Amino acid sequence: MKKVVIYDSTLRDGAQGRNISYTVSDKIKIVKKLDLLGVDFIEAGNPGSNPKDHEFFEQIKNVKLQTSKIVAFGSTRRPDTDVKDDHNMQAILAADTEYVTIFGKTWDFQITNIIKTTLDENIGMIKDSIEYLVSLGKKVIFDAEHFFDGYKNNKEYAMKTVIEACHSGAVEVCLCDTKGGSFPDEIERMTKEVLSRVKCAVGIHCHDDNGMGVALSIAAVLAGATSVQGTFNGIGERCGNANLTTIIPNLQLLKDYSCIPSENLSNLYDTAHYISEVSNLALPYQAPFVGISSFSHKAGMHSDAVRKDTSSYELFDPGLVGNERKILMSEVAGRSAVLKLINKIDPSIEKNDDKTKEIMKKLKDMEFEGYQYETAEASFELLIRKILGMYKPSFELIEFKVTVNEPSVNNVNSYAMIKIKVIDQYEITAAEGDGPVDALDGALRKALGKFYPVINDIKLTDYKVRVLDSENATAAKVRVLIESSDKKSSWNTIGVSADIIEASWLALIDSIEYYICQKGKE
Amino acid sequence: MKKVVIYDSTLRDGAQGRNISYTVSDKIKIVKKLDLLGVDFIEAGNPGSNPKDHEFFEQIKNVKLQTSKIVAFGSTRRPDTDVKDDHNMQAILAADTEYVTIFGKTWDFQITNIIKTTLDENIGMIKDSIEYLVSLGKKVIFDAEHFFDGYKNNKEYAMKTVIEACHSGAVEVCLCDTKGGSFPDEIERMTKEVLSRVKCAVGIHCHDDNGMGVALSIAAVLAGATSVQGTFNGIGERCGNANLTTIIPNLQLLKDYSCIPSENLSNLYDTAHYISEVSNLALPYQAPFVGISSFSHKAGMHSDAVRKDTSSYELFDPGLVGNERKILMSEVAGRSAVLKLINKIDPSIEKNDDKTKEIMKKLKDMEFEGYQYETAEASFELLIRKILGMYKPSFELIEFKVTVNEPSVNNVNSYAMIKIKVIDQYEITAAEGDGPVDALDGALRKALGKFYPVINDIKLTDYKVRVLDSENATAAKVRVLIESSDKKSSWNTIGVSADIIEASWLALIDSIEYYICQKGKE
Repeated sequence: MKKVVIYDSTLRDGAQGRNISYTVSDKIKIVKKLDLLGVDFIEAGNPGSNPKDHEFFEQIKNVKLQTSKIVAFGSTRRPDTDVKDDHNMQAILAADTEYVTIFGKTWDFQITNIIKTTLDENIGMIKDSIEYLVSLGKKVIFDAEHFFDGYKNNKEYAMKTVIEACHSGAVEVCLCDTKGGSFPDEIERMTKEVLSRVKCAVGIHCHDDNGMGVALSIAAVLAGATSVQGTFNGIGERCGNANLTTIIPNLQLLKDYSCIPSENLSNLYDTAHYISEVSNLALPYQAPFVGISSFSHKAGMHSDAVRKDTSSYELFDPGLVGNERKILMSEVAGRSAVLKLINKIDPSIEKNDDKTKEIMKKLKDMEFEGYQYETAEASFELLIRKILGMYKPSFELIEFKVTVNEPSVNNVNSYAMIKIKVIDQYEITAAEGDGPVDALDGALRKALGKFYPVINDIKLTDYKVRVLDSENATAAKVRVLIESSDKKSSWNTIGVSADIIEASWLALIDSIEYYICQKGKE
Repeated sequence: MKKVVIYDSTLRDGAQGRNISYTVSDKIKIVKKLDLLGVDFIEAGNPGSNPKDHEFFEQIKNVKLQTSKIVAFGSTRRPDTDVKDDHNMQAILAADTEYVTIFGKTWDFQITNIIKTTLDENIGMIKDSIEYLVSLGKKVIFDAEHFFDGYKNNKEYAMKTVIEACHSGAVEVCLCDTKGGSFPDEIERMTKEVLSRVKCAVGIHCHDDNGMGVALSIAAVLAGATSVQGTFNGIGERCGNANLTTIIPNLQLLKDYSCIPSENLSNLYDTAHYISEVSNLALPYQAPFVGISSFSHKAGMHSDAVRKDTSSYELFDPGLVGNERKILMSEVAGRSAVLKLINKIDPSIEKNDDKTKEIMKKLKDMEFEGYQYETAEASFELLIRKILGMYKPSFELIEFKVTVNEPSVNNVNSYAMIKIKVIDQYEITAAEGDGPVDALDGALRKALGKFYPVINDIKLTDYKVRVLDSENATAAKVRVLIESSDKKSSWNTIGVSADIIEASWLALIDSIEYYICQKGKE
């Protein structure tokens, strides 16, 4: 197995994507997750370009990583300046990383028409910058921006830039298909030519503008490149960067390369979903290998065949990347998937029982209403219990009233009053909060805590809102997903309504009812 | 320019995708749209497999199409039956189309282990079915299911299936990478070999399980295949089918092939979004060529370069596929991108003016608070106006109070009371709604409408909520994005707060203030 270096740029090139805006704390979370997965390099920011990245590099110095090396990114020196006076160069050095990556121009057109300097001065910028950084003990990766466009326009000049970078002491030249329009055969041919003319390592950095970012990166590796730059879930500017989440299993499970430690491969699904959450982007259902649908089968014949032999319609065991096979609910086979959950509650129920059919029907009805139980297994368990008659509510809501005032008084603008009944006792109380949901959550816990002190251990750890059918604007339905945890475990619940308060309320009571129900069994 | 036949299977293989469920009327809408775009074939269903498809084929007979031919899809006859007695075969014939596509097995493993018949009987099934359909005047396309897996496992047998299909009178054999795990070099080599051994046309049908569906299809075309099967937006089972929306511009704008009439290419964006709407699936921002971000630029340096010469970071003029260029506002966006917006309001301000610096600083501060102006350009324009002293609020909020009650009365659970002041006049009013935001929106419009009747033309067309820093659960900050429109144009605004009502309120007043401000200029 040949080793391919995985170089992640989610936090730098990925952060150029629409709707991406990482806080310093987001960045540190993602670094830790990537380190656990075992990627080799994490290009974490451009310390010269904004103060948030500067702050990140200060903080990350105190974080101990097991596998990954943090890389600071920046540009070659500006035209006609002394490299020692260059502000970006100083910012890169201040980041204090063992490895640094600097990008430079290789496309003659960009040099003469965009940055408006001479081809010779550009070579000087590359040489000076690399030599300066190397003289200060840095290991330097040179990102050859627009390399393939440069090659097509002026092959000898483009080749000269990477040859000079290598001569100046770069440990790697990374060939960038910056605007993403190359084809696999071109990448293969040009990568081979670079490999035959430089002594340092050669990497590849592709984008997905023509929908081939993964294929282009793989073409370069098959041609001999030993390092792949990309981002998790393919986030990035325009159509995104080459998707490492897709590239890694292709090379490691379908070809004979090693990208990350093999014992970590089954964390890929979890890592991709975690990064998607922290990035606040939905991970497409269909995403290769790690999408929630990537191993799901709907067509009757396909799911039949998969039951006979999974290799019929699967490339490998989904568990290898931490994913799982799903037979979608619309099929007869879906019933056996649901039955598995039912049997966790009542092992005596069988596939063709009326109760199983009733649960299947209810499931379809609820999904039609906008519920999705895949990420709300606690609510689904309660739903099954209700149908099986194995659920007793722990309280009855008599009334709540939530008020939001503007202007607010003493920085509090929301109040909730609640009245509940437990067996034959009433409790009425109130709470204030940051917004109506927070106030309502506080009031409910206060009222219930009197009867069930155990709920004081619950903490709401995540709260997500999705607008369904958003064309109905403020009267559209919303889906609220809540994650709760005590110190030992966590569970997810869901609520759907046109009113966000009600949707939150539904998810909130499921969360508490589920917990009380679990505790009752202990 | 060589012609490549475009064969769309959105309504058949695409309909196997998760969350896809087309009504007959959806299917007819999509057929009409694809016909207008000018695809050659529309595989619209499997009339033998379900009654909805049967009904569709009845109705489509009365729809006159200009370019596209409708294709009915089905299986070869079952093992050990007479082709004339085969129910699927009869259903295909009843669809009454000029072209039919039948799929058959080519992978020996599938034949012996899944459908459990002999290799010879499988050849008989292919021959009988094609000859029978041809004898009744049909033009037959043979989908060689699992062809590439078959070739890898038993090359001569796989070749024999397609050679026999061609001998039996098929006009085309379409090579299917059914489970989607092949690599471009394999597809190229095997397609070339088929081309050298059959006389009929050769097509390609790929899936995206390894993220290379587009590259695989293109590899086959470059090897000589003359027909491409796929779906719009790549919808389909598991990770989806090869994405025609991506393949068409690749072949037609970046290579020298003709897929659809060139005068229709600029309808591609509209067609992709239309099909996404009818399918009730969000089209990813990043989708190559047709995503709303596919030609957007965020990094300061990139957007500077694009302004100097668009070919720096664009493969072609976005208008060629009906898309458009966007320069996103963000902390990494350069001052010149911001300046362009400032100059729309005050053309006299220059790049190094203090006002420009003040706006840049404010932009960074607001982004730190959780604002993101890249999709809220109207709020950003108001922010600039405020700093330039070119903004006068059209009203003053004195107070609002929103109440949510549970249980609700007459299905209404939310009420909002509002009091505003315009110049020296006060207005107090109230409204009810589906949830607190809806009620507040109604009350504000009612109060303001008295002074600015023009706002009655505004409709809220989209409302999105994102929870920032969701680990603080219900007290976390939320970002609300609102899209509003009159009949002529639409604009986007933003609000951020720990309280969802306040965040919505901020976005709401920006939306209205922006409109009044625009109207004031007319």
